[in-house]
Amino acid sequence: MSSRASEVLFLANIQPQLQREVRAQLPGARFVALDSMNLWIEIARDALVAAISEVDCLILNDAELRQLTAKPNLISAAREVLAWGAADADADADARRGPTVIVAKQGEYGAALITRERFFALPSYPLETVIDPTGAGDTFAGGLVGYLAANARDGISDELLRAAMAHATVLASFNVEEFGTERVARLARADLDARLQELQSITQFSVPL
Amino acid sequence: MSSRASEVLFLANIQPQLQREVRAQLPGARFVALDSMNLWIEIARDALVAAISEVDCLILNDAELRQLTAKPNLISAAREVLAWGAADADADADARRGPTVIVAKQGEYGAALITRERFFALPSYPLETVIDPTGAGDTFAGGLVGYLAANARDGISDELLRAAMAHATVLASFNVEEFGTERVARLARADLDARLQELQSITQFSVPL
Repeated sequence: MSSRASEVLFLANIQPQLQREVRAQLPGARFVALDSMNLWIEIARDALVAAISEVDCLILNDAELRQLTAKPNLISAAREVLAWGAADADADADARRGPTVIVAKQGEYGAALITRERFFALPSYPLETVIDPTGAGDTFAGGLVGYLAANARDGISDELLRAAMAHATVLASFNVEEFGTERVARLARADLDARLQELQSITQFSVPL
Repeated sequence: MSSRASEVLFLANIQPQLQREVRAQLPGARFVALDSMNLWIEIARDALVAAISEVDCLILNDAELRQLTAKPNLISAAREVLAWGAADADADADARRGPTVIVAKQGEYGAALITRERFFALPSYPLETVIDPTGAGDTFAGGLVGYLAANARDGISDELLRAAMAHATVLASFNVEEFGTERVARLARADLDARLQELQSITQFSVPL
């Protein structure tokens, strides 16, 4: 099946043991991301931790990341997860397993990206009218991993991850403007590009140093 | 008294009628900012609205801005306040009174700046250890208005406001690292500049357009 040959895999939110089984079917995937939710933290935490330890990227709500790690601070919580799956630390760096990228979704406040070396944060795209926030997080995660899958020819660099965060932020902004997936379904490339450009302009500043 | 000659005035959080009296003592101030809190929204809303209508800039917590305007959406809430004091709208633009700048403090999520034409948002400076968040909002507001007072020779441009937001964000990040004002008291210019530079680097991204 051609899906098994995918280089980028997104394990959307579902029972973690099932995520592990899907992940095991794509041993050659170069970049695997996983989303989850409070329910699995509460009733299947061990399986979830095992699942997270087998992927490259964890995408989770801010509050759920704190719940998962019992760390009230975002950076500490992310660092904790970045240390999971480090059992192979004696092996050389390339052989080291476990997540290297943590994405904390912060709803209307935006999203943060934490890797072992760097931090990045983006506000959400400002909207005066929000009709239906349902699915915003899923649209964000799909937009993020979809962007990586489409652009990861030369590997997953920090710059690519940041561009993917911007892409995801903008995609989610369209999702909440109408019910269900109506707005995203008729989204044109130009709409998306216009908001990407605006997202960049609303986050830029210069300080005399 | 030389204080009366100040061109930039910050009315920190206190009873709104008292803020109005102080503001009236500096009729020549070019830029007046006001901070407030939930208590005054609850027990002295009319006086607070009158006070806000007499200043150029409102600095308020995100949640309090929504409470003040009864608008659940940040942009709508800010637009509402930007319309206050518009009674002189028939006069020429320069004679128009009322706030032109709204700063919404969002705690650990950062801060947003809303003017009549533009929007700007910054994450907070990421910290792994937060010892005492008391006074973070006051440090932020003081850092913002202090930066404007020191750099407003050519007026208050959008670029200056953005730089002031960055300055305020970084200043507040030092405040929370120790109890009281201990850390800020021994702050060196170089510490501040280093974090300003890092704040810029953690918010930058480029997307192929």
